[in-house]
Amino acid sequence: MEPMILHEYAPSGNCYKIRLTAALLGLPLDRRHYDIMHGETRTPAFLDHINPNGRIPVLQIGDRLLPESNAACWYLASGTPLILQDRFEQADMLRWMFFEQYNHEPNIATLRFWKAFIGEEQLTSSQTAQIAGKRLAGEAALTLMDDHLAQRRYFSGEAISLADICLYAYTHVADEAGFDLSRWPAVQRWIAAIAATPGYVALDA
Amino acid sequence: MEPMILHEYAPSGNCYKIRLTAALLGLPLDRRHYDIMHGETRTPAFLDHINPNGRIPVLQIGDRLLPESNAACWYLASGTPLILQDRFEQADMLRWMFFEQYNHEPNIATLRFWKAFIGEEQLTSSQTAQIAGKRLAGEAALTLMDDHLAQRRYFSGEAISLADICLYAYTHVADEAGFDLSRWPAVQRWIAAIAATPGYVALDA
Repeated sequence: MEPMILHEYAPSGNCYKIRLTAALLGLPLDRRHYDIMHGETRTPAFLDHINPNGRIPVLQIGDRLLPESNAACWYLASGTPLILQDRFEQADMLRWMFFEQYNHEPNIATLRFWKAFIGEEQLTSSQTAQIAGKRLAGEAALTLMDDHLAQRRYFSGEAISLADICLYAYTHVADEAGFDLSRWPAVQRWIAAIAATPGYVALDA
Repeated sequence: MEPMILHEYAPSGNCYKIRLTAALLGLPLDRRHYDIMHGETRTPAFLDHINPNGRIPVLQIGDRLLPESNAACWYLASGTPLILQDRFEQADMLRWMFFEQYNHEPNIATLRFWKAFIGEEQLTSSQTAQIAGKRLAGEAALTLMDDHLAQRRYFSGEAISLADICLYAYTHVADEAGFDLSRWPAVQRWIAAIAATPGYVALDA
């Protein structure tokens, strides 16, 4: 395989997903750090050469660049058991990955970023006006996950897949966004199961 | 193939994606309509039996249910040329599908819904506070797409794929959200190319 570089900001759950996928598969990744708190992904060099969307993570494979965390996980896991092969199960796994980017990340990850990284007193009035809605939507996402996990061990199929990895990244640190995970016991059990997977690495590893 | 039912609200671009994918592949879909303007996806029956997330579209395959528009397109297109097979190109195609759900839909589709379906005077103060930010983010998404399409005919690979279908759904009606597409000529050329694809059906067909 060509050498791979993860362009990242280490505390980001979106970057962590890629590291966790690589670790579970035993794939080596070089890591290049950008301080998003100081605009290092909005420089002309980054926009011109790494990602015109001004965002991390970007997975570099040789000289090709792949933005979007869940797409990078897909690349790494291609042809491995982390991508379910049954036609319905594969689509269902992607269903949870799209749910993660649409219903989970914009609420739980954004509230974590605002609360734990920027600080609520630094937010704009438009951001402050969105907190209550994002809290409700984040609770709804966790409740939906908990109802699903009350009846099954993993999100899709019978073993850990990318759906679990992608949802795990921001769920297991949802307390940093102000969510009390004791309200969602099936989610807590699932978090413990993911963390016990052979090859697991922690977010701050 | 098992009989398939699309649970949908016809004017939704997310529902249209699935119809367009099915049409391009010549797959039959039954359609069941829900009036989201009158809460028909928030009833106990819908939440219990169709989608606990209270959203359309849901693709029903036999008795199995698949929410999330892009996942439903993936199911339909499994094993067809609409899903690119090269490892990098397949991940890159998904990259654009995740971009669509994260950077495009929450801005362009939401502004279309607020402006053309709900009416700006009916919005909550929190929604009104988000309009300016969503407009800027929608313009940024269209600019990113235009820069990409200025150098290539389709989003990934050398032919139409799910990345094009999923991005097309809300882009070609972005004028209903207040975006003037003449600002993005490569996007306009690409829209015309997609609409000329054999088997194409319009949103209101």
